[in-house]
Amino acid sequence: MTSRVTIPVLINGEPLDCLSSLDRGLLYGDGVFETLTVLGGQPQFWRRHMTRLRAGCKRLGIPFRDESCLLEEACKITVGSDPCVLKVIVTRGPGGRGYQAPVASKPARIIQRHPYPDGVPACRVDGEAVRLCEQRLGWNPALAGIKHLNRLEQVLARQEWDDPDIREGLLCDRDGRLIEGTMSNLFVIKGQTLATPDLTRCGVAGIMRTVVMELADQVPVQARIKTLTLPDLEQADEVFLTNSVIGIWPVIEVDKQSCGKGPITRRLQDLLANLQSGGDAWQQ
Amino acid sequence: MTSRVTIPVLINGEPLDCLSSLDRGLLYGDGVFETLTVLGGQPQFWRRHMTRLRAGCKRLGIPFRDESCLLEEACKITVGSDPCVLKVIVTRGPGGRGYQAPVASKPARIIQRHPYPDGVPACRVDGEAVRLCEQRLGWNPALAGIKHLNRLEQVLARQEWDDPDIREGLLCDRDGRLIEGTMSNLFVIKGQTLATPDLTRCGVAGIMRTVVMELADQVPVQARIKTLTLPDLEQADEVFLTNSVIGIWPVIEVDKQSCGKGPITRRLQDLLANLQSGGDAWQQ
Repeated sequence: MTSRVTIPVLINGEPLDCLSSLDRGLLYGDGVFETLTVLGGQPQFWRRHMTRLRAGCKRLGIPFRDESCLLEEACKITVGSDPCVLKVIVTRGPGGRGYQAPVASKPARIIQRHPYPDGVPACRVDGEAVRLCEQRLGWNPALAGIKHLNRLEQVLARQEWDDPDIREGLLCDRDGRLIEGTMSNLFVIKGQTLATPDLTRCGVAGIMRTVVMELADQVPVQARIKTLTLPDLEQADEVFLTNSVIGIWPVIEVDKQSCGKGPITRRLQDLLANLQSGGDAWQQ
Repeated sequence: MTSRVTIPVLINGEPLDCLSSLDRGLLYGDGVFETLTVLGGQPQFWRRHMTRLRAGCKRLGIPFRDESCLLEEACKITVGSDPCVLKVIVTRGPGGRGYQAPVASKPARIIQRHPYPDGVPACRVDGEAVRLCEQRLGWNPALAGIKHLNRLEQVLARQEWDDPDIREGLLCDRDGRLIEGTMSNLFVIKGQTLATPDLTRCGVAGIMRTVVMELADQVPVQARIKTLTLPDLEQADEVFLTNSVIGIWPVIEVDKQSCGKGPITRRLQDLLANLQSGGDAWQQ
């Protein structure tokens, strides 16, 4: 299997991409992950990502104590490869058969360096076309918000289209509430209000989502977490998506219906760029 | 990592327990699995397990075409190790970053041999105590029924107790409908009716569940798939659980409330034992 590896990987600090099939990350998706951009030699918003990783491990009951190794390993694997994307996975580690966790779990840490994807900066300017997915997100408050490894809903949603001009699909919950994109969080602007869906029942609370909420004061707009449905999307003045790799992407089309790019999205992009070019975003 | 391996494993036919961390089974739980008992040199109900595996791959869009290798590899890994438990995992194989599946996926097949667990035959006679879990199962009709690798709901439910005298926990959906155990399917008997929950919104449709439904005619009782709630459990004449390893386990206690073991459960156990001792269960 190792012959297929085409990217640098560290597993528990070792440069060998070889995970036991007894790892509960494989068997049950029993783990969490973070995806970060490395710019100017710095993994952006590192502290925030580590806070979410820690919260995810706590929620799942994974006794992960090697957080201090992660920054060292992240720097080691990304040095001289700027910009790039860093993926950090923590699983509960190896287990036996059956759902019961081992009494003494030995969590595994996996760090991968991926290429920075093409087209990200262009989409920030030009905006992107998205679609509404038929796949619905199931409710599970115990798992909502964290970035765990059970991602089949997203995999199924992403299979609904293969048009390369559509960059993202939006997902509702079973009751028709808008929740997020397959890989991004959703924001809609109406008047002076910036709103993003409530994620207490399902969805991933993205790091960039929180950053954008915090930047809202400087626009200034009022940031709100609220229930959003399709009419909110149709009536929005501006719509955009966020994640740690894309930053902020204006949405210009939802299922062929135009959305307007607008000044508040651009202002937020500028504020984010300023924050990241300041060189201290990694500490946040 | 390979130093930790304590059980025989074949990955794509190779006796090396080394999976790439780029495998989508790890990254997203993008795969399915089967757990079988090997008795008398035969993986029990092999054909049925393969039918479900195939259905699961189809549902997830995994182009798995190496089913013919699985029986050969299963026999190879279990020869002379009777009884034992066989775990068969098929993932979509390695991928890049992002939910979109590779255009040409190369599914991975993973076969593990596990020890036959202690206490299974005794529980068939003595019955088991179970509990009601607080964890609820989210609805996702697109994933319901198949045995996929997204199993965090079961992991969280199993963490709710560590009393070794409680062997299983029962799970409801968000609306309070009884669905299944963390690792088993649920049956309740009232009068001459044998009922098991509907699994079109969530839950795993177990192979042993289907076998038991088919054996009902010979009891005889009327087998029904229906909505079950807690009062159905409280008012049942008999309650039992099924899976491919335990077979049929009578439930004698739910949260300290006694359930009666009874004649219909015993009759079904006898019918199952006859079927399996006949030596052709593996072909079914």
